[in-house]
Parts: sequence; C-alpha cells; structure tokens
Amino acid sequence: MPLNALNPRSMVELNKIVIYGVGLIGGSFALALRRAGAVREIVGFGRSRATLEDAMSLGILDRIGADEAAEVADADLILLATPVAQMSAILSRIAPHLGANTLLTDGGSTKGDVVAAAYANLGDKVGQFVPAHPIAGAEKSGASAALAELYQGKRVVLTPLPENSDAAVASVRLFWELCGAAVCELTPAQHDEVFAAVSHLPHLLSFALVHDIAQRDDRDLLLSFAASGFRDFTRIAASSPEMWRDICLANREALLGELGRYQRELETLHTALVAADAAKLEEIFSLACSVRSGWAPK
Amino acid sequence: MPLNALNPRSMVELNKIVIYGVGLIGGSFALALRRAGAVREIVGFGRSRATLEDAMSLGILDRIGADEAAEVADADLILLATPVAQMSAILSRIAPHLGANTLLTDGGSTKGDVVAAAYANLGDKVGQFVPAHPIAGAEKSGASAALAELYQGKRVVLTPLPENSDAAVASVRLFWELCGAAVCELTPAQHDEVFAAVSHLPHLLSFALVHDIAQRDDRDLLLSFAASGFRDFTRIAASSPEMWRDICLANREALLGELGRYQRELETLHTALVAADAAKLEEIFSLACSVRSGWAPK
Repeated sequence: MPLNALNPRSMVELNKIVIYGVGLIGGSFALALRRAGAVREIVGFGRSRATLEDAMSLGILDRIGADEAAEVADADLILLATPVAQMSAILSRIAPHLGANTLLTDGGSTKGDVVAAAYANLGDKVGQFVPAHPIAGAEKSGASAALAELYQGKRVVLTPLPENSDAAVASVRLFWELCGAAVCELTPAQHDEVFAAVSHLPHLLSFALVHDIAQRDDRDLLLSFAASGFRDFTRIAASSPEMWRDICLANREALLGELGRYQRELETLHTALVAADAAKLEEIFSLACSVRSGWAPK
Repeated sequence: MPLNALNPRSMVELNKIVIYGVGLIGGSFALALRRAGAVREIVGFGRSRATLEDAMSLGILDRIGADEAAEVADADLILLATPVAQMSAILSRIAPHLGANTLLTDGGSTKGDVVAAAYANLGDKVGQFVPAHPIAGAEKSGASAALAELYQGKRVVLTPLPENSDAAVASVRLFWELCGAAVCELTPAQHDEVFAAVSHLPHLLSFALVHDIAQRDDRDLLLSFAASGFRDFTRIAASSPEMWRDICLANREALLGELGRYQRELETLHTALVAADAAKLEEIFSLACSVRSGWAPK
C-alpha cells in the first residue's frame, strides 16, 4: 500500500520523541513529524540553551529536557542530530536508561563512526538503534534554519545493523517517510565510501580553494572579479567548519582514499598542462562535461 | 556626465559592426547594442554555417558575411568572440584590410595570448585593438543562448595597450557600457593572474572531480547519491571542453602557478587528515567559511 494512500494520523502517533540537537536536521525532523500529526510531544536536549530556547519559540519543541534519564526511559523515539563527534558521549550517558521499546536513529553524515559508537555504548540494546543519514544538508545551520519541508523529496539512507529487527527498521523508515523523504539502504561502509566521493571530498576541495585565496594580500582584488562559477563552486565553503572538521575526521579513511585519487587526477592535469597536451586536456574535460550534462540530483 | 543621463540613440550610432563568432558572447553583444539603438547593421562571420543561420533567424545578425576584406574595411567596430585560439588566424587575415577608423575588441577569457596575437598580426594598427573580457560566461553556449541582457550589471575588464589612444579606449568602453556592463581596467598580466585564480582553476578542479568519478565502474551508484553540494560544485564541469582546453592552454603559465599552489594546499590537508589534526582542519575551514560567508559576486 503506497504511503500516500494512508492517513498518517490514523497510523502512527508517537507519545514522545526526544531530539538531541535542534538545529537544521533535528529541528526539521521535529517540524515535519509534527506537521504529519505523528507525535504528541517533542522534547529537546542540546549544548546551547539559546538554541533550545529558539527551538521553543519556533514551535519545534514542546519542552526543553531536564531529567535526561527519565526522558529517555519512556521516549518512543530518540533522534541524535548533534555533530557526529558528540554522539558517543550521549549514547554512553543514556544507554542505562533506555526503555525497552525506545527506538533510536540519527542524522549524522557519516555512519562507520556512529555505528562504532553505538556498538561501544549500547551493548545488548544496539538493535534499537537504526542509523540514518538524511541527504538534506545546507550551508545554513541552527534552529532558525529548520523547515517542515526540508526532507520533502530528499533521500534518507538507512544503514541497518544485523541486530536490528525488521520491525525496528520498518518503523524508523516510516518516521523518515512521514517527513517526506525517499528512504533507501546501504551498509555503513558502502555509505561512507559513497559520501566521501560525492560530498565530503567536494567540501574539502571547496574549503581549500577559498582558504588558498583568503590567505593572500590581494584577496579583495581577486574576490572582486570572482563571478558565478566561483560562487557556485565555493557555496559549500560557507558550511559549518566544526561540523565538517568532525565529518572529515569521522570518515577519515575513505576521505583519504578519495583525496589521494583526486591528487593523482590533478597531477595528471598538471603534467598535461606542462606539456601543453591539448588532446589530454580535451579528453578529460569532454568526459566530465558529458557525464555532468547528463546528470541531475534526485 | 553619467552614462544613464544620455540617450544612447542620440550619442552613438555605428553604421556597421562585424562579429566573429555569434555564440553566447558575440550574439549577446549584438542583441544588446541593437536594443540600445547603437548600430545600423550587424554582420557575422563564423566557422559554422548552421550557427550563423541560427543567428540570422534569432535576429542577432542582419547579414552573414561573405567578402571578408570588404566587410572589415568599412566596419566601425569588429568584435572577436570566437574561442581565443582562433583569434590569431582571424587577425592575420583581416589586418591588411582594416579601415583606418575601424576599432576592434574581443570577448576572450584570457588576455596575454590575445594581446600577443594582436601585436604579432596587426603591426602598426595594433592601437585600434582594445582587448576586453566580459565576465559573463555561462555553461551554455551557442547563438540560442544569447541574451540582450547578458551583460546587464556584469563586469567587463578592458586591458588597454600603450598604443591605444584615449579616444579608442573610451569608445570601446562605451560600447560595452551600452550593453549594460560595468567596465574596469587591468593590465593583461594582472588580468590573467586574477582569472587563473578565481575562474580558470575552479573550472579545472570541477572538471577533475567529475572526471575522477566518471571513470569508475560504480559511477551511477555514486551519482545517484550526489546532492546539491555536488550539483553546485560541478555546475561548471558542464562547460564547453573545447573552450576550456583553449583557455587553459592560453593562460597556461598563470594557471600552472595557481594549480601548484592548490596542490600544496591539498597536501597540507592530506597531512592534517593523516595526523587527524582537528585544530588544523578547523583553522582552514574556519578562515574559508568566514571569507566565503562575507563575499557575494558583484
């Protein structure tokens, strides 16, 4: 039965969701499930009191969490939407208090490290945790960037664990679908390799270009002549430095593989330029142009 | 007197403009000057008969040129809007026939090579040539991509030669301003260094990333997970391979300098990743983020 034939209200209504990190990812999840009528109460935790208060005033949260042990004990669902580097400490704190029927998912951009943190901290409750990566980043962050429609038509990758029951995976899938997302599955390792190539490396390269220019005495002159090509190439260099530092470290091994490949690609181009090898340059540009022209994001 | 206080029709009306290459750059120049009422007749030359006929049917041209020597003898203005690698041959052919009052300008993305071609071919007529670079590229090309408003609010860089009279520079400046552009001046060498950094290198890097992915067996899987960050980073990889081959070769020296700098930047990032040096990564990302967040294209 296709999801859009169902009335979500009649199908799913959670008593309580607990969200760690009420920024773009966590806040949008809350707004989307609230709009779908899928939850009675949303409780938030986070490092910044100001962000939590923003989230209250924006209608993202019903309450700011106080007694963590009590909140996670009777939650139907916990979403970890903090930077990935903070998830291990959260899992460690909450593991002893998790209710037997509480499901967990996350919004982290890397999965190998999150899965490792889950195994390290959740013990025999690891089957309650169904890792997820919503492909809906933006250079904006914070509660004020959250949107009920952020996940509409976007992909969410689940990377289920052998310990997850079919019912746990199906439930977590449904919550993301109620946010409007198209859900698919990869293994954690596949996920990290794919995203090192198509997301993490491009971010690193974009930061590198702007950093290279930013260090120069004539950077204002240079930037005054930069146009739409530079604008689009460097849009992602305005992304959160802290978040991307964590992503790069969390997915270090796959990212190093991709960076090494790319450095060899640049060495090939450098050699072709030194030799003024027109045919080689055109061959590289032509394949890139034909593949890029035939592609559009899903 | 500010330009917008003038009625262009009362001020400038050229009898004839000859345009070499009636694609995005040349076609848009024609449409803009026609809309400004600044020209009686526009004549086009080009390698492709089909493109010239497109340009006729789109109202870009009044005539397709036939007798080149006669056409350039009484033209008021000639625009070279072909790929830069073709300009030397054109200048060589037309130099003996150029009228004494005919001005030339161009739309090339590199200036050192175009200026060298002008000196090599125009002899004592080189003062009639005022080199220009309109900063209005797009990944689209061809006559059908031409727009009367392409240059509106865009920058055009003139790189005048010592042999240009003040009157010649002022006239060519005015034609570009009549297209709606904001005109500024750099030396040819300054121009090529600036654009190697903010345009030519980003194009090379974008082509390189897509080429790297395009060669893999799992490219369709990878591309199926690429999202808006990848989309924007690689938009310019859909640019014309032939044009960018020529630009890279024409500005080879400055581009090699920029590519070398960037390769060292990646080596720094590679070292930081290998060492899991969180502070170094954050320092690089933070400077890039703050500079990029504070910048917008003019």
